Amino acid sequence: SVNPDLASERQTASFSVEKLMVLLDGGVERTRIRRAVVEAIESDPEFSRENEYFQSQNERYEAAVRKAVHLRKKMQEMGWTEDGPEYTYIYRALSGEIAFLLHRVFMRSITVLGSKKQIAKWIPLAVQYQLIGSYAQTELGHGTYLQGLETTAVFDVATQEFILNTPKISAMKWWPGDMGRTATHTMVFAQLYIHGKCYGVHPFIVQIRSLQDHSLCPGITAGDIGPKMNFEHTDNGYLMLQNVHVPRENMLNKFCEVQPDGTYVRQGSKKINYFTMTTVRISLISDQVLIPLMKACTIAIRYSVVRRQSKLKPGEEEAKILDYQTQQEKLLPQLAAAYAFHFINNYLQNLFDRGYRDIQKKNFDTLPELHAFSSGFKAMVTQYSTSAVEICLRACGGHGYSLLSGLPSLYTKILASCIYEGENTILLLQTARFLIKCFTAASTGQPVPPSVTYLAAVKPGNCPAKSKLDFLSPDTYTEAYQHMAARLVSSTAAKLQDLIQSGAKKHDAWNQCTVQLAQAAKAHCHYITVKNFAETVEKLETQAGIQKIIKHLCDLFALHGIFSNAGLFLHDGYISGAQMDMVTASYLDLLAVIRKDAVPLVDAFDFTDKSLNSALGSYDGQVYQRLYEWAQKSPTNKMSPAYERYLKPLLHNKLSKL
Amino acid sequence: SVNPDLASERQTASFSVEKLMVLLDGGVERTRIRRAVVEAIESDPEFSRENEYFQSQNERYEAAVRKAVHLRKKMQEMGWTEDGPEYTYIYRALSGEIAFLLHRVFMRSITVLGSKKQIAKWIPLAVQYQLIGSYAQTELGHGTYLQGLETTAVFDVATQEFILNTPKISAMKWWPGDMGRTATHTMVFAQLYIHGKCYGVHPFIVQIRSLQDHSLCPGITAGDIGPKMNFEHTDNGYLMLQNVHVPRENMLNKFCEVQPDGTYVRQGSKKINYFTMTTVRISLISDQVLIPLMKACTIAIRYSVVRRQSKLKPGEEEAKILDYQTQQEKLLPQLAAAYAFHFINNYLQNLFDRGYRDIQKKNFDTLPELHAFSSGFKAMVTQYSTSAVEICLRACGGHGYSLLSGLPSLYTKILASCIYEGENTILLLQTARFLIKCFTAASTGQPVPPSVTYLAAVKPGNCPAKSKLDFLSPDTYTEAYQHMAARLVSSTAAKLQDLIQSGAKKHDAWNQCTVQLAQAAKAHCHYITVKNFAETVEKLETQAGIQKIIKHLCDLFALHGIFSNAGLFLHDGYISGAQMDMVTASYLDLLAVIRKDAVPLVDAFDFTDKSLNSALGSYDGQVYQRLYEWAQKSPTNKMSPAYERYLKPLLHNKLSKL
Repeated sequence: SVNPDLASERQTASFSVEKLMVLLDGGVERTRIRRAVVEAIESDPEFSRENEYFQSQNERYEAAVRKAVHLRKKMQEMGWTEDGPEYTYIYRALSGEIAFLLHRVFMRSITVLGSKKQIAKWIPLAVQYQLIGSYAQTELGHGTYLQGLETTAVFDVATQEFILNTPKISAMKWWPGDMGRTATHTMVFAQLYIHGKCYGVHPFIVQIRSLQDHSLCPGITAGDIGPKMNFEHTDNGYLMLQNVHVPRENMLNKFCEVQPDGTYVRQGSKKINYFTMTTVRISLISDQVLIPLMKACTIAIRYSVVRRQSKLKPGEEEAKILDYQTQQEKLLPQLAAAYAFHFINNYLQNLFDRGYRDIQKKNFDTLPELHAFSSGFKAMVTQYSTSAVEICLRACGGHGYSLLSGLPSLYTKILASCIYEGENTILLLQTARFLIKCFTAASTGQPVPPSVTYLAAVKPGNCPAKSKLDFLSPDTYTEAYQHMAARLVSSTAAKLQDLIQSGAKKHDAWNQCTVQLAQAAKAHCHYITVKNFAETVEKLETQAGIQKIIKHLCDLFALHGIFSNAGLFLHDGYISGAQMDMVTASYLDLLAVIRKDAVPLVDAFDFTDKSLNSALGSYDGQVYQRLYEWAQKSPTNKMSPAYERYLKPLLHNKLSKL
Repeated sequence: SVNPDLASERQTASFSVEKLMVLLDGGVERTRIRRAVVEAIESDPEFSRENEYFQSQNERYEAAVRKAVHLRKKMQEMGWTEDGPEYTYIYRALSGEIAFLLHRVFMRSITVLGSKKQIAKWIPLAVQYQLIGSYAQTELGHGTYLQGLETTAVFDVATQEFILNTPKISAMKWWPGDMGRTATHTMVFAQLYIHGKCYGVHPFIVQIRSLQDHSLCPGITAGDIGPKMNFEHTDNGYLMLQNVHVPRENMLNKFCEVQPDGTYVRQGSKKINYFTMTTVRISLISDQVLIPLMKACTIAIRYSVVRRQSKLKPGEEEAKILDYQTQQEKLLPQLAAAYAFHFINNYLQNLFDRGYRDIQKKNFDTLPELHAFSSGFKAMVTQYSTSAVEICLRACGGHGYSLLSGLPSLYTKILASCIYEGENTILLLQTARFLIKCFTAASTGQPVPPSVTYLAAVKPGNCPAKSKLDFLSPDTYTEAYQHMAARLVSSTAAKLQDLIQSGAKKHDAWNQCTVQLAQAAKAHCHYITVKNFAETVEKLETQAGIQKIIKHLCDLFALHGIFSNAGLFLHDGYISGAQMDMVTASYLDLLAVIRKDAVPLVDAFDFTDKSLNSALGSYDGQVYQRLYEWAQKSPTNKMSPAYERYLKPLLHNKLSKL
């Protein structure tokens, strides 16, 4: 039975949860497919996540391999294909606890960078799992800065082979997933040398384990890198190469080829490589960021209407903690951010689909903008969402700290997204470089991409708002964000210019501005997110019931951003101190408004109890009962040898006779 | 051998590391004792933390019990006593991985709240470990709000016993350390009922496990609450009581007694209970917050001069990542905060020692101030430091995410300090209540404690700084903080007043101001921290070499706070936009200055390699070598059954024949 404190929250929803859910899914048919996939996966005991929080790293790994193997069978059974509409929901349904994800990256890199002949040879083997692939790029000593990779591949004309080596310990491949204990092959990125000359980093297909008995191949040292904050199910690995020979045909050669005599030929554009990285950064937002964020909001908000603590009014019963302004202020802005990022993710997906069509027509014009977008949003969204999940965790007090709440694993998983696929600060600086270029171009009247025309067109004057209600106008706050972002870009560009004019070298000047450049890039992405949210609300005018609540969330997201970054808006007086008080008043008012719909708003994310895997967040709100049931299953409740060995002698006072 | 990239950092220190270390320790003698204790503990293999990152929760628990039992022997051997100067360093040397900590809390509560007779009976038993105690206060449904506890203790005149019960599941004791599998006795906090009347929460000594065979006593259900983000070594437990009888003498009765006929007698002051909680909050700062923060700074900063990535200047070798402004901006403010909090901790300790002496003289006047201090600083310091450790972790990229870096466990440990011993938001609101009271009193000319006289004495006018150098004057920034804190307190007091005058009920008005009240309390603590740091610098004038670098850290801490909370200072124009640019310029300049001494500044914390237990942070900087060595020991490098069970059939293509 549903806890009455949770049930009552659902009776007063101001909108149809089902309608909002369909909006989030992108149509009734997609809702149907999503639910069917989740149902098929969750009803299959092979995919069970029961007791996950009690498992060791080894057990998690074994379960992930078992699930990956079983999934092949399941897909055949269900008639799901990798191109079908069901595919995107499988990962969500499995909560990512599955092996062989790098096998797909291995295949994708062959498809994109390999010749037709290479594709014809390797892809069928990979599809049939006659080999298991991985992707060995990152090294102990080098991550985001790929040019610095130290692994070498020397071409030997005599044998027509590449000889791969790990020249020093920092050159060891480190972190690649599926490589520690699983993969038979991996894509090694190495500096290519021909006749003593270096041609830069290239990808080579290298077999690392026997297909017969899985033993390591000659010259290969490989293993697992050990415990991490999360991703225990993945065997992130290390790899050392000592004189490993691979045939000339194993260098992916669609764009660059080493001919038999050692002649190096580059053909086609290098830019397409960029685009692959770019799409990965965008695609991770939905699976790796939005889902954990939405789950964390669901858990924390449901718990906050079940948990009662202290009294709001003397003499009354204890209040639900979500009725406290401070709790609302912790959780509701995170909920608004989840919606904001859902909509910006849709926007980015569309942008990239259009970009991809351009590229297929050999039009690379939009690449710099797409690259800047993917870098900046990857950084901004992962950083914001990681903080958001941490806030949700802390807002649940002690019980949030228990693994059984589900929140710790959501946090440690989303935290990794700040690091992988490009370190966030470096990504923000790439976006900043694009912004500075566009600002300079726009200032001299040159054309710039549509998303940054605002940099040159900032209107003079201050924020016109006269009352707190004026700050509920999307035009008012969107313009404030625009002004703020443009100011940060232009003032940093000016500082950069000043430094160079007063004699600093370009790279020194750049380094001295990087803190502010990163801030400007973040501000730009924040502005675009607010603008897109406001535009989304406008387009919902046919759905009156939903538009209203989404408008509230949009207002909250925008005003929370102004309230929390007040200095950026007050700095040049665009918003005055008195106006900031209006922002604060409207912001706090909104908390009380959205609080009423908080539970329906997370219900619309439609996570099943199995998918949340949380004693605090389940649909029925039977929090304490579930915590107690789950705790009893913990392996820490088996008899411990500590009693016989240490406690008994101590209590029986034998120790003192030693 | 020391990595040359780290060695070179030590050759250019602008001050004597040894002198700074002695200053931090509080004298040469204390440095000597600290080192002796650490040496004695670390050279004893029984206390080894090797392979800790590979251990299961059960293994961690067993090790903690083993160490606790061994420690008794060690203390006898070494001649250390619980009152001796060595004692405070033992916990540091063990990095907290030890059992029986709640046994001490059990004893302390008897000492403070028990009668002479009770002390005479129980303390010798506890000292001799003829029983093991725990402290059962928190319940599934109630934490910080103690009045809401639901466990009952009904006095039965006929048998002269209390009958204890857990009336519903939310009343189950939940979280108490050492209770899940270890303790034989626990201090149960329960609502006392006599003749059907409730007298509020009182402490009762309850035996829960047999002293003979450790089986649960009749009416007792108890166990371990399962996996948590950290503290795997502690058996946090649950406890359910069903008609458990304890004799009348088991209620601690120094201040309240139930007489044989059921007459309830209260004697003495209840305030002293406050003071115990208060001191616990202060004492946790040094062990649970400062040490993890200082360790995280040590690891991240040493790693950042060993890690080289990308090029700062074209054509040169790759740069140390600490040479990038963005990396400095991540780490150096956290280092400055570690020093700031070290000094505020000294200040608080002194304040509490004085307070304790007053209380012994039955003078309770300072209690409200001490309580406000302990609440606010516990909240502010734990929150700030938790963010700081997270920043250190993220600043180390992928390797920071590996447990072998030591950073994940520091983070998950310090995070708990935001929750235990009072939830931070509630604590900040208690401080805010004190501030509002004092502000109101001061406004009407009544006397207030010295720490808050500033609330009534804020000078009109704006910040007088005219250049970026002016912001390196402690008077200038301390006054800015004072102005800002006073403004937040007074404006929130005014809002509260307005709401009440326009008809809101007092508790409603309070709830509507809590977001701003919490902000004001934080601002107050931030101000006091800056002020105390500046005063500390002044007192160092006899130590010229050290004073200079500590002054830089003080400036950095203060300016970082203004830069990151710019809105609070710009709001009423006390600091103008142009002045904020000066703050920013000085702040960024300081980063480059302190960067030169970053490694010596963390060396002064004097953590041994064993104590850091980090592959990234050790004294010799052999980061990559150590990561590789440690990873090879991981249990994930043992043969996995996953190959025979799942991978072999897949690769040998047997699956497709199913």
